[in-house]
Amino acid sequence: MDVISVIRTKRDRGELSPEQIDWVIDAYTRGEVADEQMSSLAMAILLNGMNRTEIARWTAAMIASGERMNFDALSRPTADKHSTGGVGDKITLPLAPLVAACGAAVPQLSGRGLGHTGGTLDKLESIPGWRALLSNEEMLHVLDTTGAVICAAGDGLAPADKKLYALRDVTGTVEAIPLIASSIMSKKIAEGTGSLVLDVKVGSGAFMKNLDDARELASTMVALGTDSGVRTVALLTDMSTPLGLTAGNALEVRESVEVLAGGGPADVVELTLALAREMLDAAGVKDADPAKALADGSAMDVWRRMISAQGGDPDAELPVARERHVVTAPASGVLTRLDAYDIGIAAWRLGAGRARKEDPVQAGAGVELHAKPGDRVTAGQPLLTLHTDTPEKFDYALAPLASAYDIAPAGTDFTPSPIVLDRLA
Amino acid sequence: MDVISVIRTKRDRGELSPEQIDWVIDAYTRGEVADEQMSSLAMAILLNGMNRTEIARWTAAMIASGERMNFDALSRPTADKHSTGGVGDKITLPLAPLVAACGAAVPQLSGRGLGHTGGTLDKLESIPGWRALLSNEEMLHVLDTTGAVICAAGDGLAPADKKLYALRDVTGTVEAIPLIASSIMSKKIAEGTGSLVLDVKVGSGAFMKNLDDARELASTMVALGTDSGVRTVALLTDMSTPLGLTAGNALEVRESVEVLAGGGPADVVELTLALAREMLDAAGVKDADPAKALADGSAMDVWRRMISAQGGDPDAELPVARERHVVTAPASGVLTRLDAYDIGIAAWRLGAGRARKEDPVQAGAGVELHAKPGDRVTAGQPLLTLHTDTPEKFDYALAPLASAYDIAPAGTDFTPSPIVLDRLA
Repeated sequence: MDVISVIRTKRDRGELSPEQIDWVIDAYTRGEVADEQMSSLAMAILLNGMNRTEIARWTAAMIASGERMNFDALSRPTADKHSTGGVGDKITLPLAPLVAACGAAVPQLSGRGLGHTGGTLDKLESIPGWRALLSNEEMLHVLDTTGAVICAAGDGLAPADKKLYALRDVTGTVEAIPLIASSIMSKKIAEGTGSLVLDVKVGSGAFMKNLDDARELASTMVALGTDSGVRTVALLTDMSTPLGLTAGNALEVRESVEVLAGGGPADVVELTLALAREMLDAAGVKDADPAKALADGSAMDVWRRMISAQGGDPDAELPVARERHVVTAPASGVLTRLDAYDIGIAAWRLGAGRARKEDPVQAGAGVELHAKPGDRVTAGQPLLTLHTDTPEKFDYALAPLASAYDIAPAGTDFTPSPIVLDRLA
Repeated sequence: MDVISVIRTKRDRGELSPEQIDWVIDAYTRGEVADEQMSSLAMAILLNGMNRTEIARWTAAMIASGERMNFDALSRPTADKHSTGGVGDKITLPLAPLVAACGAAVPQLSGRGLGHTGGTLDKLESIPGWRALLSNEEMLHVLDTTGAVICAAGDGLAPADKKLYALRDVTGTVEAIPLIASSIMSKKIAEGTGSLVLDVKVGSGAFMKNLDDARELASTMVALGTDSGVRTVALLTDMSTPLGLTAGNALEVRESVEVLAGGGPADVVELTLALAREMLDAAGVKDADPAKALADGSAMDVWRRMISAQGGDPDAELPVARERHVVTAPASGVLTRLDAYDIGIAAWRLGAGRARKEDPVQAGAGVELHAKPGDRVTAGQPLLTLHTDTPEKFDYALAPLASAYDIAPAGTDFTPSPIVLDRLA
């Protein structure tokens, strides 16, 4: 087997054989196939595609490159969620303890933010003392004793994916549906969850800008999960506007705690409950009532135990940014658009996100929204509040916000997009 | 400027701007753009193409990465030839001294063989003492005093191409017409020749397997040369069967000397004269008679001076392989096919070629042909003689030869392909 013949097969629009896929993933992980060879193959895959058989084998080969976890010893069924990433997407924070409170075990291996989308671990790290890095034993212990754990994926899980993802990030080959699907699903299947709910984001703030691409990605992932014995469901959800009223690390933790306390923005509550019901259904938990678990404080109890178990203080004051800047509405009327991508870029420029993997993030930085599409606004009222420790960045952050919203005359007929756009199983 | 935006432009079927091209070639030469980024761009170019404007700029940027030579100080007009490579293609050896004997100066920067095609320098190195590596000053001196020089291209000429060519070789991105054309032409234009004749090979033993691809490559290169002020002509010539009766290093030198002595196989003589007339015409040399220069020994005189000037002994015995194996005709009739690719692979396996750039070649190894398509053969007569110093490779070399030829019943109507298939200027 040689790598040039594998590259040529895909370059010339052929189908990669199972042997070619197994060999190239293994040889790349071992360093026998060089980065410049894998990136040329990745570009050929991006441009010429892979069929479902090839994607399944590619995913299996990435899983086989590392260890597999196993939750069979737990007394509860496991349910996991994965979001393809968006702006203000703090859903994992209330969702994991909520589903645990309803009777499933939630092993949530999460990532950090890159570019304009936030990362769950960055958000939780704004809680004083909280640790993202756990050993496999610690992770199982937190999961077993509290019902939920949110932590970083260990190095042993799908190392081929880890290496390939870093390569795609610098070679213009991120946006390939077969590679996105196999990257996500290899980690989730290797993690060993029994069921999985995918939140596939669609819109300006998401990787997938249109519904057709999102549906293609979702159906590819559902097939991969199902074929591997993981009960898998996907919701396609709107990411044309940020979720909730905050984008930023501590800002989003604060909003998540409001949801766990029975309050919080309506869209965050709606999506949290929709995903919780899907997870519980996929895990086979009957007669659970997630809305009640939010109202009666049982989800909040799990949250507090889960944060404490990872060294965090659930009662600690969260960090607040040193400086604020308020953007006011230039006219009265109905807010008809508040663009997720522009808000995400602004939050990132304020210090909430990172440009490179090794950059630090500011815990307090981000954007607070005072209105959402469909709301009436009055000229001069606060529309957005920008938070940062580096006020010299305000101008840089304000630039994308100039065209981030539309206000239509009062009385204009406008219905905001629903949160859940479609469901695939 | 950042490399990901350049990769994305071509990946998404856009046109690269002059600034993008200049920047990416320069940054790659300096090592700021990494190999894995350039290979993903090369694959995007291979699959999505470049238009003539992009190819011209790409070529200019590669020329600008290094030094340019200048032959203006010579008293004669310069003419160069480039072949895209084939099996038994020893034409440069008799051609360069022949054209010099007719009044043009021939600066022939040549390469080594890789894969199934032979390399001019490998062939000449079978002459005891002959040196391929000359300084620019030595090269100019040999050219000025003998009228012709055949040597390796210096490191200073189009270093971007040197780096990119090595990368393409290991990343499955060799077969891209824009990259092949710009690679060849950047070196030829930087070399500073006043006129150039391209021998674009078509057929099983060539890179271009069909006439349409060859015509596309030829017209791209003719436009590049013409636009840079080099008088450029291309002949499309047949490479479905080997040129002449030998494929191998010393074997081909021997055949070339026969041509210079006024003999040699008809097809080699025909193509040598056709290319010589094009070169002399492009260089503006009037009233030359190349056929006479072969017959009267004046081309041979230049050959002897040229070989001597580079340390070679034109009278030395050429190396002979230690072992031979004869393949006989299995039937009587008319030879209708003798496949260039299969013969090239056999010669390569016998030791005439190399798998990696750093491998040595055997001077004496190769394949001798005793018949050519159109010839009558008799069952049991010698068809091919295999030469090697490593007889343990005979079986390995014989494998591709099993299906390398067809013999039709005697009396079958068969006309071999003409040598010159088309001409573009």
